[in-house]
Amino acid sequence: MNVEFVNPFLSSLVNVLSTMAQTELKPGKARVKTDEVARGDVSGLIGMVGPQVKGSFSISFDEQIALEVMNRMLGEKPDKINEEVTDMVGEITNMVCGGAKNLLGEKGYDFDMATPIVVSGKGHTIKHKSEGKKISMPFESDIGVINIEVCFDK
Amino acid sequence: MNVEFVNPFLSSLVNVLSTMAQTELKPGKARVKTDEVARGDVSGLIGMVGPQVKGSFSISFDEQIALEVMNRMLGEKPDKINEEVTDMVGEITNMVCGGAKNLLGEKGYDFDMATPIVVSGKGHTIKHKSEGKKISMPFESDIGVINIEVCFDK
Repeated sequence: MNVEFVNPFLSSLVNVLSTMAQTELKPGKARVKTDEVARGDVSGLIGMVGPQVKGSFSISFDEQIALEVMNRMLGEKPDKINEEVTDMVGEITNMVCGGAKNLLGEKGYDFDMATPIVVSGKGHTIKHKSEGKKISMPFESDIGVINIEVCFDK
Repeated sequence: MNVEFVNPFLSSLVNVLSTMAQTELKPGKARVKTDEVARGDVSGLIGMVGPQVKGSFSISFDEQIALEVMNRMLGEKPDKINEEVTDMVGEITNMVCGGAKNLLGEKGYDFDMATPIVVSGKGHTIKHKSEGKKISMPFESDIGVINIEVCFDK
């Protein structure tokens, strides 16, 4: 997979979390995933389909981080992951992927986004099933680490 | 959401499990989901994008059912959900959605499929985040209940 496909997700996530949750993210080192799996307590997933490529995007949060993002975005902090939190994770997934779509569109890579899906469950793992490389990237912040994964079939 | 969109997923799933795993499924009563969430130990998810509609599809298995499907499809039954099992769930997700895509294409509803994602984690829940109705359908079989969900934005 071309690194050109990944950077737009990175800058879109930094932008969304900064604007929506006043949280500055510091990108960590991207890894090409082999056997590893992303792990989190709540994850947003979205499918992408374009004329040149197909793929999937995910963003995973630990529970406490998701609740703190909720607090910063909406000024309310539930005790645990509830429907408001999964709605927020779905929205963030949409916004980050939408931002990346715009940036990639400017470079001539077009794709459309499916509707997002949010998975909840303590320590669940995610595997993107595609022939292409999976890029996993951690982001550090004052509230903890957020992980994204991007996977395209070419 | 038009019921025309759902039946192709139903018949495709029955067909795939019968052909690949010699398992006859009996469709239960479809429900329009409101607050409920799909629950399982391993789930395959896929995004769909077409000129008229966007959506998402998921299929969820309890661990023991996934392992038995694995046994029937490939003649090996691991102790727990491993990468072979998640590969199989990804394949089933692709095949069921691909079958439905063909049937819907014949009716003039075209969409493309993103690449599948497989989630593992005891008792995780799934929420399709879309404006449209979410249809949830259980299927009974001699090895237990398998649940699918289909969601389109119109």
